[in-house]
Amino acid sequence: LQAEIIAVGTELLLGDTVNTNASFIARELALLGVNVYHQAVVGDNRERLRQEFLRSWNRSSLIILCGGLGPTEDDLTREVVADALGLPLEENASWLKHLQDLFQRMGRNMPPSNRKQALCPQGGELLFNKRGTAPGIYLQKGEKAVILLPGPPQELEPLFKEQAAERIAEFARSREEKQVICSMILKVVGMGESAVEEKIADLIAAQENPTIATLAGVMEVKIRLTASAPSREKAEKLLAPVATEIKTRLGSYIYTEGERLLEAVVGDLMRNKGWTLSVGESCSGGLLSHRLTNVPGSSDYLRLGVVAYTPEAKKNLLGVDPGQISLHGVVSRPVALAMARGAMKAGGSDIGIGITGFAGPDGGTEENPVGTVYIAVVSREVEYARRFNFWGERERIKERAAVTALNMLRRILLQS
Amino acid sequence: LQAEIIAVGTELLLGDTVNTNASFIARELALLGVNVYHQAVVGDNRERLRQEFLRSWNRSSLIILCGGLGPTEDDLTREVVADALGLPLEENASWLKHLQDLFQRMGRNMPPSNRKQALCPQGGELLFNKRGTAPGIYLQKGEKAVILLPGPPQELEPLFKEQAAERIAEFARSREEKQVICSMILKVVGMGESAVEEKIADLIAAQENPTIATLAGVMEVKIRLTASAPSREKAEKLLAPVATEIKTRLGSYIYTEGERLLEAVVGDLMRNKGWTLSVGESCSGGLLSHRLTNVPGSSDYLRLGVVAYTPEAKKNLLGVDPGQISLHGVVSRPVALAMARGAMKAGGSDIGIGITGFAGPDGGTEENPVGTVYIAVVSREVEYARRFNFWGERERIKERAAVTALNMLRRILLQS
Repeated sequence: LQAEIIAVGTELLLGDTVNTNASFIARELALLGVNVYHQAVVGDNRERLRQEFLRSWNRSSLIILCGGLGPTEDDLTREVVADALGLPLEENASWLKHLQDLFQRMGRNMPPSNRKQALCPQGGELLFNKRGTAPGIYLQKGEKAVILLPGPPQELEPLFKEQAAERIAEFARSREEKQVICSMILKVVGMGESAVEEKIADLIAAQENPTIATLAGVMEVKIRLTASAPSREKAEKLLAPVATEIKTRLGSYIYTEGERLLEAVVGDLMRNKGWTLSVGESCSGGLLSHRLTNVPGSSDYLRLGVVAYTPEAKKNLLGVDPGQISLHGVVSRPVALAMARGAMKAGGSDIGIGITGFAGPDGGTEENPVGTVYIAVVSREVEYARRFNFWGERERIKERAAVTALNMLRRILLQS
Repeated sequence: LQAEIIAVGTELLLGDTVNTNASFIARELALLGVNVYHQAVVGDNRERLRQEFLRSWNRSSLIILCGGLGPTEDDLTREVVADALGLPLEENASWLKHLQDLFQRMGRNMPPSNRKQALCPQGGELLFNKRGTAPGIYLQKGEKAVILLPGPPQELEPLFKEQAAERIAEFARSREEKQVICSMILKVVGMGESAVEEKIADLIAAQENPTIATLAGVMEVKIRLTASAPSREKAEKLLAPVATEIKTRLGSYIYTEGERLLEAVVGDLMRNKGWTLSVGESCSGGLLSHRLTNVPGSSDYLRLGVVAYTPEAKKNLLGVDPGQISLHGVVSRPVALAMARGAMKAGGSDIGIGITGFAGPDGGTEENPVGTVYIAVVSREVEYARRFNFWGERERIKERAAVTALNMLRRILLQS
């Protein structure tokens, strides 16, 4: 079963609104085992909407349109779809009554323009919308179906889940297409996209079912496996051996299955150990603390963060010996280690992290240019420090430093 | 000049990634006076991408594709566009050298797969990408132009602003479309979108040329004026009186003209005064330090940040009296003030900021529910503290707290 999504609205074309509806519907369709090969956006324009709809209708079996169901003149979706399919619009008496009651309860008369929201193409079914004045519409014609949904996400999302999803599932069954799609995500940190692909090049080359895709983030790579089979169980059976093989090859570079963030995975490890953490940051400027504290419940293990942007702050709050700074420079392994030890001590915690480097655009030396970052992780048993050469702009260098520190912490937690 | 946007990537079709690139590009094109009538999304599929591209190419004058420029086998945009236009791909020696140097600096050999990122369709121009391995491509052919941009927003957005925008403007001029579009942004902080709209309701109602649009952000509102005229000078003359009127009405709620960030504006004010700053954060978890340190040169005025996530850290590093915490609670005005004073003292700086609150989802009391945040700003002359009730999820509350603290600092700097 192939579906297309058409989002209607000039505010989308102008970029004033981000098209979250399309990604929501696409995710929901994937869960239902429905493939989406095309998404489109058109403005509130009768002719362009008509062309776009007919193109999709001729090409795919299920078309989902969102937006353009409001009461105003530029809300055209209902009219255009009825017209394109050669169906007359009929007034739905019970929705009209519902609307009139709604306005009455608000102490107002229903504006005449709202009346058209009770219109439905002949043979269509209204989907009751508890959260707004525009109902959804489900319409099957021959071997194909079209669904119209209101544009506001707070109306569209529950309406889809509560009413559209079951009709789509039923429609899919009626076509006796029993294929189910199952996806699985493996998240990798500390290895670049091309290195990941090299490790699994033969699997990628041989991919068929499941398919294998990689997506690059900052210092991270997502691997997505997607299988299709007559049942969820069978799809999962197709996924399992490939996932196992990839996990074997990438080992602990894979930090999670699914969509969890690295800081949340690290938080779980901290909580499992019952350990506490303090961080001393310089070039990363508080980003590591910020990411750690984005995780609900991080106060269970995070004690303290210090952003020591001056030598005095490094001395007074983290106990870094000014002699070491003059000897080795502020961007150096000994200073990173001293910051980590100082944070651990000041926070009275089990682990300390220290980060010092040049985030740019100014600063840096010939030996340690912009992008040079030293990161240290210390516990009572272990001291580990490493030099990195990150590239990119200031914010990107901060981000690479924070992700790398999280990953170093993760590795130490795994090994302890 | 009519443009279309095609976003490429199976992750978009599956809904795993929200298509923020399309809305970003659409907004930027609107500023350049370019109309967008169609947007589409296609997966990493050669034939469907080819069809989609050719349809757009035959219909419009400027096609912008984003995504599919990576080093992997499913990155097809470059190849498909070259093939569809009948142009051979040529290797760009200087970009290849750049890539090899880049990997060398990271102490690695360039994987063979990255080599294809130096390919460019004949006649095309590479757009230098400082932030990734995929350059953009600008290609004019006959009366039409196509632009390829890398998919990651942190690469695409600056590349568009720094390199694509001027080429699009030039392309538009070359087509002798003499209407010039000029835009102007006024950024407001500390006033909601509907309050802003009320203050300028009559101007919005009467808008014609320039048009007036408001865009809501987190605790901020952007007002965009757009005028069109036969020359830049004439367009600017249309903008000036409306801008002056809006500035008069909103006064110091407007913190900048243009796209500068609040933390950069505050940084300029700090530098002008020659003052220094230290911050003590609890519920905002380092986000205020992170935003302050995103500004290049912030080490000129930022001395210290402390993320004191425990009462001990508040006592030991910021000198907060535990008696005050027991008496007033850790989320209270006296504790915010004590944190601000403690940060100022520990950093030896002219100004201190203290933030304490409940970011949720757990925590909070009946009197001070989740979302309650106290923010204090102190200098040697002034002490100012205020209670806020922010709403939203954990990350949103952190963000509201950080923006509000920046704005309180800005107001104190303006008044001193």
